[in-house]
Amino acid sequence: MRSVSQKATPDASRRSETARRAILTAALDLVGRVGYAKLTIEGIATAAGVGKQTIYRWWPSKGSILFDAFLSLTTDQQDGALPDTGDLAADLKLVLRATVDELQDPGFDLPMRALHTEIVHDPVLAADYATRLDEPMRELKRDRLRAAQRAGQMSEDVDLDVAVDLLFGPILNRWVQRTGPLTHEYVDLVVDTALRGLKP
Amino acid sequence: MRSVSQKATPDASRRSETARRAILTAALDLVGRVGYAKLTIEGIATAAGVGKQTIYRWWPSKGSILFDAFLSLTTDQQDGALPDTGDLAADLKLVLRATVDELQDPGFDLPMRALHTEIVHDPVLAADYATRLDEPMRELKRDRLRAAQRAGQMSEDVDLDVAVDLLFGPILNRWVQRTGPLTHEYVDLVVDTALRGLKP
Repeated sequence: MRSVSQKATPDASRRSETARRAILTAALDLVGRVGYAKLTIEGIATAAGVGKQTIYRWWPSKGSILFDAFLSLTTDQQDGALPDTGDLAADLKLVLRATVDELQDPGFDLPMRALHTEIVHDPVLAADYATRLDEPMRELKRDRLRAAQRAGQMSEDVDLDVAVDLLFGPILNRWVQRTGPLTHEYVDLVVDTALRGLKP
Repeated sequence: MRSVSQKATPDASRRSETARRAILTAALDLVGRVGYAKLTIEGIATAAGVGKQTIYRWWPSKGSILFDAFLSLTTDQQDGALPDTGDLAADLKLVLRATVDELQDPGFDLPMRALHTEIVHDPVLAADYATRLDEPMRELKRDRLRAAQRAGQMSEDVDLDVAVDLLFGPILNRWVQRTGPLTHEYVDLVVDTALRGLKP
């Protein structure tokens, strides 16, 4: 029994990881097509080619699957910390240019819009979003700005949350309301203008 | 015939204005309760106590009613131009504090969320919003910032759209995503930090 289990574990683990990836991919694809309101565990299971029980073993709700799917997308791409080459403006432009590219990629834009369609009027989902997605990403942004403060590139008395909001808020807001084009030129102007106010 | 018409006109005009106000109020109230998707001309007519034909005489669609309703709300409150006391920071804080108060008033918050629920995933409605609501308000904001440039309180080389986005974007974004409390203290910090970068 023990030797069987020892032999089976690597295979089972690979199978689990494959199923987990298939479920997260299916959830993102499906929510972009049908919207959050019509997203179901059953639909995700069918699209991922797994049983509903496999999903319920790992996730209690469709919201928890979707948040893990967004987290895996973000983690895959940004690998944790924001870049720190010592040039704050260049690093922020790199991150924000990647953000607007991502926001214009249908594979990210559509599920993100489906999620925001609900967040706008659902305070419980919004609180989940704030805690599980926004706050971990925000902490990475604050870390980069703290490093800039230590390097003497940003004023010590700046409220770091306000700084994050000035840098990322305009881009997210333009994405939500579509009040203007999300170009790299726009990103660069936002970063340069915001940083003028954040310098020592 | 002519004298009858002359006598009837003021009454008819008063009745029209009363009906128009009732329709706009009913549209705002209803969209906050049932959402934009379930808002109908019939529902608005019933709630306003007018016939559907009265509505169709003035508006071609529910979207056009709702935009006029938001415009009338905004126009009633802000009376056109932004305040200009000569103190840019104080004037912006006044406007943005009023904005967050408004965004937390259920009579404005609920219809605005219902509208944004659709705007997030409907590019046509978003374009209407950008043209009919955002752009006229944005022009008023740019006007105030242009006056600040003439008064030597804002750098001449600042892109005015980026300046508007830095000042208003963080607040709208915090309202959409509910990632933090919309307080007057937050407003003041955003204005003070953004203006540091906008000064000559």
